[in-house]
Amino acid sequence: MSDGTAEYARTARTTPTRYRDRATWERAEIHAILDSAYLCHLGFVADGAPVVLPTLYARVGDRLYIHGSTGSRPMRGAADPGLPVCLTVTLVDGLVLTKSAFNHSVNYRSVVAHGIARQVIDPDELSVALDALVDHAIPGRSGDVRRPSAKEVAATAVVRLDLDEVSAKRRAAGPDDDEADLGLPYWAGVVPVTTVHGAPEPGPATTVPLPAYLHDFR
Amino acid sequence: MSDGTAEYARTARTTPTRYRDRATWERAEIHAILDSAYLCHLGFVADGAPVVLPTLYARVGDRLYIHGSTGSRPMRGAADPGLPVCLTVTLVDGLVLTKSAFNHSVNYRSVVAHGIARQVIDPDELSVALDALVDHAIPGRSGDVRRPSAKEVAATAVVRLDLDEVSAKRRAAGPDDDEADLGLPYWAGVVPVTTVHGAPEPGPATTVPLPAYLHDFR
Repeated sequence: MSDGTAEYARTARTTPTRYRDRATWERAEIHAILDSAYLCHLGFVADGAPVVLPTLYARVGDRLYIHGSTGSRPMRGAADPGLPVCLTVTLVDGLVLTKSAFNHSVNYRSVVAHGIARQVIDPDELSVALDALVDHAIPGRSGDVRRPSAKEVAATAVVRLDLDEVSAKRRAAGPDDDEADLGLPYWAGVVPVTTVHGAPEPGPATTVPLPAYLHDFR
Repeated sequence: MSDGTAEYARTARTTPTRYRDRATWERAEIHAILDSAYLCHLGFVADGAPVVLPTLYARVGDRLYIHGSTGSRPMRGAADPGLPVCLTVTLVDGLVLTKSAFNHSVNYRSVVAHGIARQVIDPDELSVALDALVDHAIPGRSGDVRRPSAKEVAATAVVRLDLDEVSAKRRAAGPDDDEADLGLPYWAGVVPVTTVHGAPEPGPATTVPLPAYLHDFR
């Protein structure tokens, strides 16, 4: 477990061999990236081969939670003694066009966390995690829904990944052309990329006004 | 290799155990999802543990290409006899809010491809792949840049993953509440999510007008 220091410890697999200046182990920056997204890609090994599945996650302090059906592969795998996983979160912020094909790049923020995913058994932790999984994507939502029934809780598996062996990488800059290419008559620059959350569309059974936490959502 | 039929063959690992009605093996639909995105998450096994890294990809027919430095881990691993990978592409289209916490969902489109990534050696295929990697994200761009030099080509590793064992999943629907929850006084509906490409921002060395292929880009 992490000890609250400003940086996560660096290990061989969280120290990139390429673009090391883009890497950071700073806790605050890693948390900020994790809190700016809600989709992760979870990697695990099944029958010796890699599997990568998209899923939602939540962060609570130095813990990440993901959930799924009790019957799903990663959830079954996370039963004792736990499942080695790699959990990756990526936000694309821009396409970077340079005068040479070779120097084209992407502005992005990403977090890669390695560790053992373990099933959450403790009822109190499970309750915190289930609320967090709703609130991470839609802050404030867990207080404005029908709470999970005992049967629903029993059908949901939640696994925890402690943030311990984790790093981030980011690029946020304009085109980085070779000196010799600067005079070439091609367009170079950045196409900004953002994820936009549009106006909420009520379903047919909705009779209440749009709640405050969905105004100017994200 | 695929044989041009309308569907990719189903295998145990491309047949989901959950939400099977959301799955498809249709070639046209899988290609359409792959062509709507350019970021993938590539999973492979290193020292027995899963690793998931974000990277750009391109599709050329039934082949996906990714590239990287010749020194990077997956590129080294893809040298003969190839590297088992799982390549996953996910587009989030909406957050689906239901009256119960349990039924909350996401509208999305995702593709999961399994196979052996192999390094591209043939110079002609390499050239096609490098152009495709630029054009997949920015259609038309490869014809309006300085072409890669021999030295740059030598520094770039390109690997190919044949689309063969591949499936897609998608959800595109409103809230799916339990009958008993429909009368509850909570807001239910969909928050649409889109990826927006903003107005291109020219860099300091750009002296030419914005090219046509960047007008109304994506």
